[in-house]
Amino acid sequence: MSRVGDAFAALEVAQRPEVFLFVRDREVVEAEAASAQGPLAGLLLAVKNNVDVAGTPTTAACPTFADGPADADAQAVARLRAAGATVLGSTNLDQFATGLVGQRSPHGGVRDARRPSYVSGGSSSGSAVSVALGLADVAIGTDTAGSGRVPAMFQGLVGIKPTLGVAAVEGVLPACRSWDAVTIFARDLDTAATAMGAMAGGPGTRAWPSDVRLAAPTRPRVAVPETLVRMEPAWVAAFDDAIARLEAGGADVVKVPFQDFLDAALLLYDGALVAERHGAVGDFVDAHLDDCDPTVGGIVSRAGEVSGSAYVRDTARLEELRARAMGLVEGCDVLVVPTAPGHPTQAALAAAPVAVNSWVGTYTNFANLFDLCGVAVPTGTVVEEDGSVAQTGVTVLGRAFEDAVALDVARRMAVLPPSVALPGAAPALPDPGPWPLLAGAEATRLLVVG
Amino acid sequence: MSRVGDAFAALEVAQRPEVFLFVRDREVVEAEAASAQGPLAGLLLAVKNNVDVAGTPTTAACPTFADGPADADAQAVARLRAAGATVLGSTNLDQFATGLVGQRSPHGGVRDARRPSYVSGGSSSGSAVSVALGLADVAIGTDTAGSGRVPAMFQGLVGIKPTLGVAAVEGVLPACRSWDAVTIFARDLDTAATAMGAMAGGPGTRAWPSDVRLAAPTRPRVAVPETLVRMEPAWVAAFDDAIARLEAGGADVVKVPFQDFLDAALLLYDGALVAERHGAVGDFVDAHLDDCDPTVGGIVSRAGEVSGSAYVRDTARLEELRARAMGLVEGCDVLVVPTAPGHPTQAALAAAPVAVNSWVGTYTNFANLFDLCGVAVPTGTVVEEDGSVAQTGVTVLGRAFEDAVALDVARRMAVLPPSVALPGAAPALPDPGPWPLLAGAEATRLLVVG
Repeated sequence: MSRVGDAFAALEVAQRPEVFLFVRDREVVEAEAASAQGPLAGLLLAVKNNVDVAGTPTTAACPTFADGPADADAQAVARLRAAGATVLGSTNLDQFATGLVGQRSPHGGVRDARRPSYVSGGSSSGSAVSVALGLADVAIGTDTAGSGRVPAMFQGLVGIKPTLGVAAVEGVLPACRSWDAVTIFARDLDTAATAMGAMAGGPGTRAWPSDVRLAAPTRPRVAVPETLVRMEPAWVAAFDDAIARLEAGGADVVKVPFQDFLDAALLLYDGALVAERHGAVGDFVDAHLDDCDPTVGGIVSRAGEVSGSAYVRDTARLEELRARAMGLVEGCDVLVVPTAPGHPTQAALAAAPVAVNSWVGTYTNFANLFDLCGVAVPTGTVVEEDGSVAQTGVTVLGRAFEDAVALDVARRMAVLPPSVALPGAAPALPDPGPWPLLAGAEATRLLVVG
Repeated sequence: MSRVGDAFAALEVAQRPEVFLFVRDREVVEAEAASAQGPLAGLLLAVKNNVDVAGTPTTAACPTFADGPADADAQAVARLRAAGATVLGSTNLDQFATGLVGQRSPHGGVRDARRPSYVSGGSSSGSAVSVALGLADVAIGTDTAGSGRVPAMFQGLVGIKPTLGVAAVEGVLPACRSWDAVTIFARDLDTAATAMGAMAGGPGTRAWPSDVRLAAPTRPRVAVPETLVRMEPAWVAAFDDAIARLEAGGADVVKVPFQDFLDAALLLYDGALVAERHGAVGDFVDAHLDDCDPTVGGIVSRAGEVSGSAYVRDTARLEELRARAMGLVEGCDVLVVPTAPGHPTQAALAAAPVAVNSWVGTYTNFANLFDLCGVAVPTGTVVEEDGSVAQTGVTVLGRAFEDAVALDVARRMAVLPPSVALPGAAPALPDPGPWPLLAGAEATRLLVVG
């Protein structure tokens, strides 16, 4: 059976109606897949529904938000299509990409691929679960506070969150315009890198500097948080194990104070920077509060009360924190953090929707604020108190444009879980080499170390 | 007599007490000048008093704003000193760098070097006049809305406003953090370029991309506004003459619609972006309104009423305008505009302080908002209705990092006026070559065209 046929069969078998908000007509998908050419030919693409796909309404999980189908593909979608990927459909998300749990949607919370009573993670919830289950092979997510990383960990996937601006946000509904990144989910590193290399670059994207590194040193210097806050012992142990393995394989680990990173994370929601969310969709939310998820509507409408001056001052405060935090990791090639401090059940989230969501973002919120790139990879499992097995993982964070360095270290740390993909899912692609080269970085001046 | 001796004599002769807010001790200046080494050795530097000079209070022309002398030099000052420049003193400005006229200061409006009843231009008023009069040889200005360009034109100087971020703003009091540039004034292009090459670069500065151009094509493609608005015929004719000379010397001139540029200019003061000014100094201004210039205090305190959401939306609107405007100049190497539409008298300004100031910024306000670099050069004179002779000039604007391209075209257009510098002013330095090379751009991948 064809990949497309398998996927439509898998959609039936999976019984996960909450994953896709729109599935394109089978005939159209089959026709496009049959004529696809390029490195991603044969792969099915799921697109988070805050990213334009021609012919599909961009609802951001708020049905009344879209006036009608999008006229054109977002640049990220168009570039993946040009590289051979075929769009299967558009996926559920935390409404307006406001959340890290995948449950803030009128279409239902997206359930974890392996443990349906647990949350999928979000906001790119449907994108992640569609790839984990093999309904799609690659998915587009977006990531402002961790939405391309948290669900990658929960679903045992690779999530690449590139440097801000190197993948175009044209055609993407903003969450926080200043800190939105378009991301890729895949079941393996090489497929993720191939897709990111195809998606990034092109008109309006941030130029690569002249001294981009294409790999980590043979023996990288790796910063890790001095103390892991807000984590249960089993989760701390899993992180420590992953770091110990990296160290044993040849890396120098440096413990760094982490308070500045945590303080920046607080600015995003508890400070004035949240004004960005009102700037993005506040006019709609204020006028249609009844159409919104209550948690999301509350966050966005309250964000309208922030003053411009406070926003500007918090931006300055952020810059100070960033400078100081970057000083702490000076001389380090990457910073490795747990992707999330743990994995909540749907019940635990329902009991404290905002607090649990904030907790989930402990190790992700600061990354875009600090202009870091990141690669989230699975590194093992943790047995929960209820006896179920959680996927755990780390995010390897690099400075802006050090995407290939972060990916290199992530590759050394990744322990991919047994697949739960349904039959027909595409196998891993070959290693495409450092993806920034595919996305417009110049090779002439690149520093290949080690 | 030594350069320093000449300068102190000129300070006496000039009778312009409003130009310098602080002059350093003669003995200290002499000792530093005697031991100075580097390309700028022998040159005296004036520093706008919103930029830290160790030992001098940074008042921004609001005496109660400074708690005491600055502990250390701003990075820009330190780098110029390291290249041999000696700081003579710190100069008057439109308070908090809010203005383009040079008259919004409790220390008195700075008078034009040649025509004392005319305004100096601002906000870098004292810096420009100090160089025009030969009290200093190079001056640091800052430029958010045109403060490094307008006074250059009025005073017959070269003003280099580099790409945002390539010269460090560390130690500079923000006006609008997002759009502040540190600039250089000099009496000739080569001295200005040498100083800018020394000042730019270093810690925290924006990295040069890998494909920086070091010169304009032999026959550049030059965009100019389709219609010159808000200008008297004599001023339009002077601009047209300058463009005709450039064309005759070998350039293709393309007329472009200019409304998008003008609309962006309005956003800076009439839209929500003005919140940046409250973010910078609003806490002080709100608490010390009586200590402030009434015009400046009013602008800053009203800027505190803007909402964060409106700020974010205007930022998005700006980005749309920028994309469209950049589309209009696609294929052009530079955009050349009048630096200012005319040169007001102090009396005309006093009659309409805000309207005249806005008018002066017609052709400068959009540049930093659009992430353009610019070089302001004199191109000739205009005889005013009162029979006096005004300096006129153009600003050659380039895309971010195209600083050397803009300078190259500016060099072809510059017509330096007869000097009004007092005796002892340093002569022009030799051509240092493209200054981005001095400021950290890499030569290996640079495109030298023509």
